[in-house]
Amino acid sequence: MDMERLTELLGQVQSGDCTIDDAVAKVRQLPFEELGGHARLDTHRAIRTGAAEVVYCPGKRPEQVAEIVQRLTEISGRAMASRANETQFDAVREVVPSAVFHQIPALITVGQPITPTNPDAYVAVLTAGTADMPVGEEASKVLEWQGTRVERLYDVGVAGIHRLLAHIDLLQNAHALIVAAGMEGALAGVVAGLVACPVVAVPTSIGYGASLGGFAPLLTMLNSCSGGIAVVNIDNGFGAAQFAHRIVRLSLNP
Amino acid sequence: MDMERLTELLGQVQSGDCTIDDAVAKVRQLPFEELGGHARLDTHRAIRTGAAEVVYCPGKRPEQVAEIVQRLTEISGRAMASRANETQFDAVREVVPSAVFHQIPALITVGQPITPTNPDAYVAVLTAGTADMPVGEEASKVLEWQGTRVERLYDVGVAGIHRLLAHIDLLQNAHALIVAAGMEGALAGVVAGLVACPVVAVPTSIGYGASLGGFAPLLTMLNSCSGGIAVVNIDNGFGAAQFAHRIVRLSLNP
Amino acid sequence: MDMERLTELLGQVQSGDCTIDDAVAKVRQLPFEELGGHARLDTHRAIRTGAAEVVYCPGKRPEQVAEIVQRLTEISGRAMASRANETQFDAVREVVPSAVFHQIPALITVGQPITPTNPDAYVAVLTAGTADMPVGEEASKVLEWQGTRVERLYDVGVAGIHRLLAHIDLLQNAHALIVAAGMEGALAGVVAGLVACPVVAVPTSIGYGASLGGFAPLLTMLNSCSGGIAVVNIDNGFGAAQFAHRIVRLSLNP
Amino acid sequence: MDMERLTELLGQVQSGDCTIDDAVAKVRQLPFEELGGHARLDTHRAIRTGAAEVVYCPGKRPEQVAEIVQRLTEISGRAMASRANETQFDAVREVVPSAVFHQIPALITVGQPITPTNPDAYVAVLTAGTADMPVGEEASKVLEWQGTRVERLYDVGVAGIHRLLAHIDLLQNAHALIVAAGMEGALAGVVAGLVACPVVAVPTSIGYGASLGGFAPLLTMLNSCSGGIAVVNIDNGFGAAQFAHRIVRLSLNP
Amino acid sequence: MDMERLTELLGQVQSGDCTIDDAVAKVRQLPFEELGGHARLDTHRAIRTGAAEVVYCPGKRPEQVAEIVQRLTEISGRAMASRANETQFDAVREVVPSAVFHQIPALITVGQPITPTNPDAYVAVLTAGTADMPVGEEASKVLEWQGTRVERLYDVGVAGIHRLLAHIDLLQNAHALIVAAGMEGALAGVVAGLVACPVVAVPTSIGYGASLGGFAPLLTMLNSCSGGIAVVNIDNGFGAAQFAHRIVRLSLNP
Amino acid sequence: MDMERLTELLGQVQSGDCTIDDAVAKVRQLPFEELGGHARLDTHRAIRTGAAEVVYCPGKRPEQVAEIVQRLTEISGRAMASRANETQFDAVREVVPSAVFHQIPALITVGQPITPTNPDAYVAVLTAGTADMPVGEEASKVLEWQGTRVERLYDVGVAGIHRLLAHIDLLQNAHALIVAAGMEGALAGVVAGLVACPVVAVPTSIGYGASLGGFAPLLTMLNSCSGGIAVVNIDNGFGAAQFAHRIVRLSLNP
Amino acid sequence: MDMERLTELLGQVQSGDCTIDDAVAKVRQLPFEELGGHARLDTHRAIRTGAAEVVYCPGKRPEQVAEIVQRLTEISGRAMASRANETQFDAVREVVPSAVFHQIPALITVGQPITPTNPDAYVAVLTAGTADMPVGEEASKVLEWQGTRVERLYDVGVAGIHRLLAHIDLLQNAHALIVAAGMEGALAGVVAGLVACPVVAVPTSIGYGASLGGFAPLLTMLNSCSGGIAVVNIDNGFGAAQFAHRIVRLSLNP
Amino acid sequence: MDMERLTELLGQVQSGDCTIDDAVAKVRQLPFEELGGHARLDTHRAIRTGAAEVVYCPGKRPEQVAEIVQRLTEISGRAMASRANETQFDAVREVVPSAVFHQIPALITVGQPITPTNPDAYVAVLTAGTADMPVGEEASKVLEWQGTRVERLYDVGVAGIHRLLAHIDLLQNAHALIVAAGMEGALAGVVAGLVACPVVAVPTSIGYGASLGGFAPLLTMLNSCSGGIAVVNIDNGFGAAQFAHRIVRLSLNP
Repeated sequence: MDMERLTELLGQVQSGDCTIDDAVAKVRQLPFEELGGHARLDTHRAIRTGAAEVVYCPGKRPEQVAEIVQRLTEISGRAMASRANETQFDAVREVVPSAVFHQIPALITVGQPITPTNPDAYVAVLTAGTADMPVGEEASKVLEWQGTRVERLYDVGVAGIHRLLAHIDLLQNAHALIVAAGMEGALAGVVAGLVACPVVAVPTSIGYGASLGGFAPLLTMLNSCSGGIAVVNIDNGFGAAQFAHRIVRLSLNP
Repeated sequence: MDMERLTELLGQVQSGDCTIDDAVAKVRQLPFEELGGHARLDTHRAIRTGAAEVVYCPGKRPEQVAEIVQRLTEISGRAMASRANETQFDAVREVVPSAVFHQIPALITVGQPITPTNPDAYVAVLTAGTADMPVGEEASKVLEWQGTRVERLYDVGVAGIHRLLAHIDLLQNAHALIVAAGMEGALAGVVAGLVACPVVAVPTSIGYGASLGGFAPLLTMLNSCSGGIAVVNIDNGFGAAQFAHRIVRLSLNP
Repeated sequence: MDMERLTELLGQVQSGDCTIDDAVAKVRQLPFEELGGHARLDTHRAIRTGAAEVVYCPGKRPEQVAEIVQRLTEISGRAMASRANETQFDAVREVVPSAVFHQIPALITVGQPITPTNPDAYVAVLTAGTADMPVGEEASKVLEWQGTRVERLYDVGVAGIHRLLAHIDLLQNAHALIVAAGMEGALAGVVAGLVACPVVAVPTSIGYGASLGGFAPLLTMLNSCSGGIAVVNIDNGFGAAQFAHRIVRLSLNP
Repeated sequence: MDMERLTELLGQVQSGDCTIDDAVAKVRQLPFEELGGHARLDTHRAIRTGAAEVVYCPGKRPEQVAEIVQRLTEISGRAMASRANETQFDAVREVVPSAVFHQIPALITVGQPITPTNPDAYVAVLTAGTADMPVGEEASKVLEWQGTRVERLYDVGVAGIHRLLAHIDLLQNAHALIVAAGMEGALAGVVAGLVACPVVAVPTSIGYGASLGGFAPLLTMLNSCSGGIAVVNIDNGFGAAQFAHRIVRLSLNP
Repeated sequence: MDMERLTELLGQVQSGDCTIDDAVAKVRQLPFEELGGHARLDTHRAIRTGAAEVVYCPGKRPEQVAEIVQRLTEISGRAMASRANETQFDAVREVVPSAVFHQIPALITVGQPITPTNPDAYVAVLTAGTADMPVGEEASKVLEWQGTRVERLYDVGVAGIHRLLAHIDLLQNAHALIVAAGMEGALAGVVAGLVACPVVAVPTSIGYGASLGGFAPLLTMLNSCSGGIAVVNIDNGFGAAQFAHRIVRLSLNP
Repeated sequence: MDMERLTELLGQVQSGDCTIDDAVAKVRQLPFEELGGHARLDTHRAIRTGAAEVVYCPGKRPEQVAEIVQRLTEISGRAMASRANETQFDAVREVVPSAVFHQIPALITVGQPITPTNPDAYVAVLTAGTADMPVGEEASKVLEWQGTRVERLYDVGVAGIHRLLAHIDLLQNAHALIVAAGMEGALAGVVAGLVACPVVAVPTSIGYGASLGGFAPLLTMLNSCSGGIAVVNIDNGFGAAQFAHRIVRLSLNP
Repeated sequence: MDMERLTELLGQVQSGDCTIDDAVAKVRQLPFEELGGHARLDTHRAIRTGAAEVVYCPGKRPEQVAEIVQRLTEISGRAMASRANETQFDAVREVVPSAVFHQIPALITVGQPITPTNPDAYVAVLTAGTADMPVGEEASKVLEWQGTRVERLYDVGVAGIHRLLAHIDLLQNAHALIVAAGMEGALAGVVAGLVACPVVAVPTSIGYGASLGGFAPLLTMLNSCSGGIAVVNIDNGFGAAQFAHRIVRLSLNP
Repeated sequence: MDMERLTELLGQVQSGDCTIDDAVAKVRQLPFEELGGHARLDTHRAIRTGAAEVVYCPGKRPEQVAEIVQRLTEISGRAMASRANETQFDAVREVVPSAVFHQIPALITVGQPITPTNPDAYVAVLTAGTADMPVGEEASKVLEWQGTRVERLYDVGVAGIHRLLAHIDLLQNAHALIVAAGMEGALAGVVAGLVACPVVAVPTSIGYGASLGGFAPLLTMLNSCSGGIAVVNIDNGFGAAQFAHRIVRLSLNP
């Protein structure tokens, strides 16, 4: 397609429909447009999967968040902003009245989730405890937003391993697993020994004392002797969703 | 199947073909048989993909390594052992004379790699520097061993970003990327911004001073603001290969 | 008992009182029921010792805490919730008006502690300073709730070692010791050199500067050269109580 | 006994068999003798349980180790020294020819283990991997030396959870569990959710990369959300044995 | 004195003025009384030097602080409480109306500082910056409270080394130096190279980024290659004062 | 000059215009005056470059800040105070009504920036993200205050490397680069591979989870394998500006 | 130039001298050629300043080092390799017999240092102690290799501040300072307060105990309250030299 | 004396015995000579106390150590070098044949210790275990070398607190205590609660697992709630001796 556009432009130059100066100006953009081409690819992908439309709110002022969400909404009719606070949402709602605030994973959305192209392909999102739920929900909602079906399995930590085993089929048929766990973080390793699909582990900052704000489960997950685990940043449900989305998308368009 | 077997058993009880005592004994085994069933599934998977046949050598005595490799060879005609030293290899060769020692990633192999079922599907394995090559090779050789095609792209660190951009097609057509980088570890994040497939990041212990034995690149990778990255343990080329293998296998058998 | 139930079920199948389909459905639960059997054992144990009835409140929303406490109260007539805040208690009291809030260890209780079966067996709970008292109280109240007698010995830190030695008999006759200490955390090691029973050490986050939120006493306790010490998480009076309870229970039902 | 001795002394003063000056001198010793009394108690306990007879070798010169082992052998006919190297053993054997060197947990012993008084009471010693075996063996041999029966269950890590579940009875009938695990260290928490006895967790330094020399499993174990776990220092099989011995001894002499 | 009391007691036994049983009871107390004797010595020392009269407030409830200050005031007519907050002071003032609150080092005092016995002997208290002043003031006021003269030298950090050198005489004639410094904490080492008296270094939590809450200056001070430095905890002006007070007292009563 | 003054003084001694005692007194001051001479040089430099006029506000009480700003204003007609809060600014404005508060980098200024002597020489200030902007602005405003031209290039992080490449000329013509980046902090290393001027890297505390309050980008920057990077403290835009200012000043007055 | 080339190409398309297909192919290369242009610029810079010719040896096999040094020698007649060991040097000498090994900073050189273009411009390289000398020598030799004059000032640590002050003129006339210091690392901050040029601080791993392999001086340097310091990695004399070289080069070609 | 010399010089200027130029030259040296004057004072102190004559060997080449020891021997007839290895000693002995090597604290000495001026004043040097002895011996030998009497009390750790209490008089009559302890490091805090003199705590690297190379006892000591403790670097027996020497010297010359 990029090559198409370039061919077309060069054709216009050849035919005289475009002056050399105009062409220079346009082609000058090209290197970056070609890189922007990746961005454009990204944009295409974004339109198709929703991957690019998520604004990370912390450290941004309310008016900045509002402006970006507004622009995204204008471009694509939908937008998502993660880790938003109430003030940021208020600023957004003022310029995009249809914006919705999902309190639990602190997400702002405008518009609707993409409909999954393949309803059989799903990511199972597990949390070890009830308190890990917000991280799990961030992953789940971001996946659904991007058109990936999600099966939630919350509060299935290793202290009661049978709760987990009761859902073994659900685990084994997933395209990918996201496992959010705080405290000891052992759930990801136990699960990875039971399934054949990739397990994306999300350490959470749930815990106290020597949990070190999530470093304890992070280390547990990195050191897992079960194969097939990879880890994202502490509490980074969003990153886990993006990663799992890439896996699922790949399996649908191999 | 399990339910089939159970239905059959209960039918035998109903029909009197099985005493209650025998049935109690059999059903009591079921939970573990069912789990053992997963192990069997695991075994099947191992035979098919080679995933289970890799022996982790550190901390094992030479005779232990030799015994396990010998048993694996007997069962499946092939075996792989990672992070082996010369002494361990000597012990292996004594009982399995056909064993081969690959010095660079310190691997012992018996038998041949599996032939890839789909030669179009490949994992691109990148290293930032020459010194990260052993980790890259561990990932590459383990993937090939398990029947996944590998494209190697070594020494393409961010200090000369154009070296990387020159191979953009190779990156963008891969089913997954493995990026091994020490020192600052920035390569994974830069790459993840250029491709749409999952990027498995492997921090390496290459570096000095404040590289903290690989913790510096580990943190860089975990904190990457590019989406689509997940991280395995320091120097864990093997784990990255296992994870990437799960992705590729999935995309081939979605 | 589980086997009893299974035998009975199989008998019903044999006699035709239960269809094969119904039996399949019931037995399907069994593996997990058998594991659930441990849970059931747990339930039995919980009813007997109170171990299972403690809800960990942090990270749970008030309505979640309230719902769980209510359900536990319905099942067993009593409930305990640890590390609760006022808002959570308010939510609990609305649905369980008889709930009581113990401000110092931040515990909610419904119903009465279990009466100790053996009043001679006790756990001595020591704190090094006055500020460690909340952690000591959490341990003490949880133990008493589960039917274990407690002897409190607070503010007996090593800066005035004679205060401790004055109570040597109390220490030496205990079934287990719980020692909560912040700052330098030396008390556990000194005490362990004076008694023959197990010493459960609880580092506390009391301190400042280089106490690292309890990591300093944690390290002190782990490195104790006195034998007979084991350590639980920082400020984890609850965990220490559970562990000590297992010891005492064992010594009463060896 | 101390009081007996004191009463006797005072009787001698009363009767004039002991001058006041002599009595003053003797009583002056008492405070320390009474503390020494604890030491004596310790000695009694040591003779009975073997607890005190273990010499910690690192940092001691061969002749120091030899001298202490020789003296212990003279006193009680038996001795144990932990973490000994070959040089230290050579020095010991020169003065105590009957000394034996156990290479795997690097123990020197003189004389025989104590015969368990209650063969039904045992400690189950688990290791997650083969490489954790030396730590497990240190715990096992020290326990047996002190007269506690041991059941070994090695290489039952969570990556293959069914291996563990196959031995559920052995676990549930133990008086205490010792669980040695490196890498992710998740085994202790999983096990603690399955049994009702105290679980003594020993993190090991087995692992690489982010295992931080055993800190990763240490943190995992401290943060376990299963109740009933307490932790000893990294690789401290000896300390775990001492702690478990106190539990068993207590349950035999409540 | 203790020996006097013991001799007297034994005389009473010899003479029959005291029964053996009574003597046993009394002598049994002795060990702790003798240790209590150290406590008594401590009490004497406290009365003489003011060392024991400082209450550490954090983690104590207002009523606890108030009760202890009140009791100390009753015993000795004066009291000091460190790191108090307004609420604690309010509670104190209610029961001890003459209590005074010194906002900068957050000290409560009742009564007057002890008059120095030797006005020539002084401790010089230095701070690197203005922001380290509260720590310096805690040290200064505690020293003065205990009867040690203080010379203050604030804001003389190494960024302008000449400010320090201008006061070289004051430094060189001190009996001890207390140096409070945050950020890089280099002042203590520079000063210790200029004087012959002991330098007590107090790292402060002043700083940002990589100052790690005072760990950076703590490490600087511990690693100083100038001899004659020893370090107390972060922000621990009080501990520095106590240590310096011991030095000065010793030099006055060698 | 100092030598001039000394020669003159000695001449006065020789001629009898100055007594030996007076000369002794004056010469005694010299060492510190000579160092004071550096301070004077500093003052000169400060007047010329504005380097010395920045007050660091944290930990200073409002009245202290106000007093210093007032004195600086009296001396030089201008003043700058960094990391000020509203309360500190209110105190300043009361005594220096012309003071201005710049909310984003929390700076107070009195008077005008120095006009750059060479408008061609500039420092390019880059930030990886929008949230790093306050750190970038602190650097930019401090540089401009001291008379160095600044080119801002914000939000050009490595996740979209083409945004950066679009401004390659601006980067390559700068006298120095300041690169503020949080999260993974990779921007500095990528940039340093593209330019020949010194790159001053400022890690920021923007990020979450394993960003460790800025330690992750700090380590990334220290471990950069691109040459030509040096690092300042986390969030220390001010320090980066001071360092870059020294470079630019040097290149203008080599 | 690039725009020139593009204009020319488009002219050829317009005139028919270049087919559209060929033009598409060429323009597609442009982005990378433009980046390759930077690389070409880099090559130019390298040839001019010697910056690119230093091979970092650790982690490279002897034959790899030898090959790269040989190729560099072929291209430019000279080469430098840092942190080489004897084995690597032996491999180099075999293919480049004129190679020289400088034992102290472990450097291999082929050919001669570049003659400084401006002998008045120099970098002063300071070390705090004798043991920091190898790091200082690495910086010095690399600078000289690249054509920058160096003044060495070793063993001038803050414990004897007058040793430093004796050389104040040398410090104040330098174009940049490199300060290598281990242990407490205070030298950089003290020096930065005395000069107006940029100070590049190199923490060294010299020290013991709490020096943490160089992290203590690293933190000291980052937290310096003197302005004008920036820090490179621990023991990274090479990086400091590269950075200082950029400063000097800039001041000579502003 | 410095003032004397200056007065004399100025007198010579006045009388014409010294030209102004010569005087300028000499006075120019003065600032540093006056600082050198502190160094000279240091030299005096060194001659009197032996403080300055200790060479720190690590990181110095044998010939460097030999040269410094030789020069010190020439100047003062005696010398001490700490942490020397055999090779360094061999180099020393070649040039100073009378040098002696003390293997345990790895000290080289030339000449004899200074005779204590006051044999009543002593420092008690305690170690917690046998393995801490080398650190204790470094402190003891350095103190004796400098003319301070030492009382050694080794292997009195808190696991057997009565061993310590048996020597309470020795502790209470000391001018200062040095307490070297590894593992948990609790001894310093316990001792500081029993005596009134300053306690210099030396953490040692003895320990394993979570002792973190001495960081665990370092933290314990810094966090001690007993007053009167200050801490030196890990294993720094030498620094503790220097510090204690300053205290004793002060108490003898108040």
